[in-house]
Amino acid sequence: MGQKGVEDMFDLDRAARSARSAAIALGGVSAKDKNAWLEEAAALLQEHGEKILEENRVDLENAREKGMNPAFVERLTLTEGRIRQMAQGLLQVAALPDPVGRVLEEFTRPNGLKIRKVSVPLGVVAIIFESRPNVTVDAAALCVKAGNAVILRGGSDAIHSNKALTRVLQQACRNAGLPEDCVQLVEDTSRETAGRLMTLNGLVDVLIPRGGKGLIRSVLEQATVPVIQTGDGVCHVYVDGACDPEMGKKIAVSAKISRPSVCNAAETLLVDEAIAEGFLPGCLEELRAKGVEVRGCPKTREICPWVEAATEEDWDTEYNDLIYSVKVVDGVQEAIRHINAHGTRHSEAIITRDEGAAEQFTTLVDAASIYVNASTRFTDGGEYGFGAEIGISNQKLHARGPMGLRELTTYKYLVYGDGQVR
Amino acid sequence: MGQKGVEDMFDLDRAARSARSAAIALGGVSAKDKNAWLEEAAALLQEHGEKILEENRVDLENAREKGMNPAFVERLTLTEGRIRQMAQGLLQVAALPDPVGRVLEEFTRPNGLKIRKVSVPLGVVAIIFESRPNVTVDAAALCVKAGNAVILRGGSDAIHSNKALTRVLQQACRNAGLPEDCVQLVEDTSRETAGRLMTLNGLVDVLIPRGGKGLIRSVLEQATVPVIQTGDGVCHVYVDGACDPEMGKKIAVSAKISRPSVCNAAETLLVDEAIAEGFLPGCLEELRAKGVEVRGCPKTREICPWVEAATEEDWDTEYNDLIYSVKVVDGVQEAIRHINAHGTRHSEAIITRDEGAAEQFTTLVDAASIYVNASTRFTDGGEYGFGAEIGISNQKLHARGPMGLRELTTYKYLVYGDGQVR
Repeated sequence: MGQKGVEDMFDLDRAARSARSAAIALGGVSAKDKNAWLEEAAALLQEHGEKILEENRVDLENAREKGMNPAFVERLTLTEGRIRQMAQGLLQVAALPDPVGRVLEEFTRPNGLKIRKVSVPLGVVAIIFESRPNVTVDAAALCVKAGNAVILRGGSDAIHSNKALTRVLQQACRNAGLPEDCVQLVEDTSRETAGRLMTLNGLVDVLIPRGGKGLIRSVLEQATVPVIQTGDGVCHVYVDGACDPEMGKKIAVSAKISRPSVCNAAETLLVDEAIAEGFLPGCLEELRAKGVEVRGCPKTREICPWVEAATEEDWDTEYNDLIYSVKVVDGVQEAIRHINAHGTRHSEAIITRDEGAAEQFTTLVDAASIYVNASTRFTDGGEYGFGAEIGISNQKLHARGPMGLRELTTYKYLVYGDGQVR
Repeated sequence: MGQKGVEDMFDLDRAARSARSAAIALGGVSAKDKNAWLEEAAALLQEHGEKILEENRVDLENAREKGMNPAFVERLTLTEGRIRQMAQGLLQVAALPDPVGRVLEEFTRPNGLKIRKVSVPLGVVAIIFESRPNVTVDAAALCVKAGNAVILRGGSDAIHSNKALTRVLQQACRNAGLPEDCVQLVEDTSRETAGRLMTLNGLVDVLIPRGGKGLIRSVLEQATVPVIQTGDGVCHVYVDGACDPEMGKKIAVSAKISRPSVCNAAETLLVDEAIAEGFLPGCLEELRAKGVEVRGCPKTREICPWVEAATEEDWDTEYNDLIYSVKVVDGVQEAIRHINAHGTRHSEAIITRDEGAAEQFTTLVDAASIYVNASTRFTDGGEYGFGAEIGISNQKLHARGPMGLRELTTYKYLVYGDGQVR
């Protein structure tokens, strides 16, 4: 790396220290001022739209020169419409309630100490993401509204777009009287600097990687700061013997086809042996008619011989595509065992009219979101009424499932006495 | 390591898989059955006391042969009294409310979905600790009461004691009808196996290291599973100009001397310049009379020339001893800046009658517990009314400050529909 690398590492530390100062100041900033920033940023985004698109075109040219695939280029592309969407997103976040300063609990101890547990910002949140420039704006909006300073480290392919967007967000800070350093972009997109960001204990309070499996694995391996893991979704729909089969079919089909590329889409359909013979032919035909490739267990293939054979690997695969693995199980208990062995603790559904089966399923399945007679596709901050989301947590610490503004806060205990000592 | 190492690694994986099965089963176990286990374990501990002490004597002999220091040997030592204390601890945990199954929120969405957020166990909790055998019993009690399976990895010097204690806890599982594998001890105390335990993603849900800085640093560096960081406490008492000086002195002295070895003891005393001349001589004399070594900033030494000079390092040092650093500051704002620069976000106190100063302090100081007119020493699960604690969290994710039973749980969203798809 040579001299330049060393300078960049130094800059990152300085950026993180100024982010920490900004975060402390932001902790005392009113909801009104944070909302003024969001509104200002929305206006400036529109105002500077042409300049942003110009910078984005540089990224797009570079990506095409490097021969990136069309899906990648599509994600990287900004348009007037997308800038308008980002601006609308900022205004939507402004309309949400402030998650900071909520009194979560309040009690008095026998010695007279009054203890109040209040929500406060996390502090400095670092986001490492790939080449979707809209993440720059969306993530910054949620983090700052929750009182956090944010350090953004996007992919190198989006660096010109990200710089232009960050400049707008920082200009909005100056105009609204927020510390400018509450939004910072890591302009050096080297792996070394990303690695350094993951180990800034004492300066970075939380790191949220947003991207594919490779990115998340690499963050888990390198990070020494606390990480929130998001991502993986091997989700199941279990059609119980005691269900309304029409409802079973509707949910089984929709959970796969309504948007197969997202993490809350179903990957495996489990069907109770008791109804498999009546249920599978119609359901799988419908899936086939919608263009879904079906891969089944031996029992499924006895009933529907046209189905391809599933391998062991299929049960652990997040296809993110129009492919569905199907397994016949011996009732709810085997369904639960299969899900706990192969699921990623994201979203799981049972279709049943049997309350006992539903209770076993909700109690014993280990997942963030469990659905009784509804599609797994509802796991989403918007659908849960959170207004927006920074991601869907796949771990059990701190927050599970959709993470909105409240999940970007922690708490403090404020303890009031009149001279108590111990 | 050779062949033996490979076998042990295999065993750890098997242990973790059986812990995960046990955790899933425990999620459906009633409070009554978990309490029966605690009571059974308390009775068996007393019953097998002699056998446990015998195994402990093997550890003690080994420790003396290895020339371990007296403080180490003291921590390792079990006595009839300590076994009785452990048994009483188990009964106290039995008396606490079940943290699992609490409905945290409940709401209905416009599309008719009923969403219920309920507390559930974390799953598999791994604890890595040093040579205090009582941690085996205390940690297992809290984890299992919160519905978690626990994997204990204690120090090699306590291995005989830990094995004897674990056998008792597992016997209690069999007697009370809980899965035996909900309490497991890693009998291979090699670094390799500890390292492997830290990277069992998908099997270990949370890892809590309990011990000194070296242990915690090594866990942060190696772990890929989620970690809760506990420990460090560089805590401050700030005596504001507007305080009752007698209260200031009482708290400043007590926060240092009442138990200097613990993390919530004060390490640095900050005194407002406005009252330093009147306040410091009496306060520091009293500290000296109690055997405290005082290290001061230049202004402190102008007022009390007998005080030794503090170095820059002192402001960042957790002495855990009868040593106190003292600094004169220019009011509450400089106090806040000093604490945010040098504190470990654990426990911080202001002594003042000025509500404005108190509000600035509680808003802008970044710490888990902030005291107004009370000692930092109250940061403790028992003092907060949690009944017991697994540790004091030093990070912002998940739980902050004292962690009791509730902090050993997470949540699930249960979503009830009547056929909704998206």
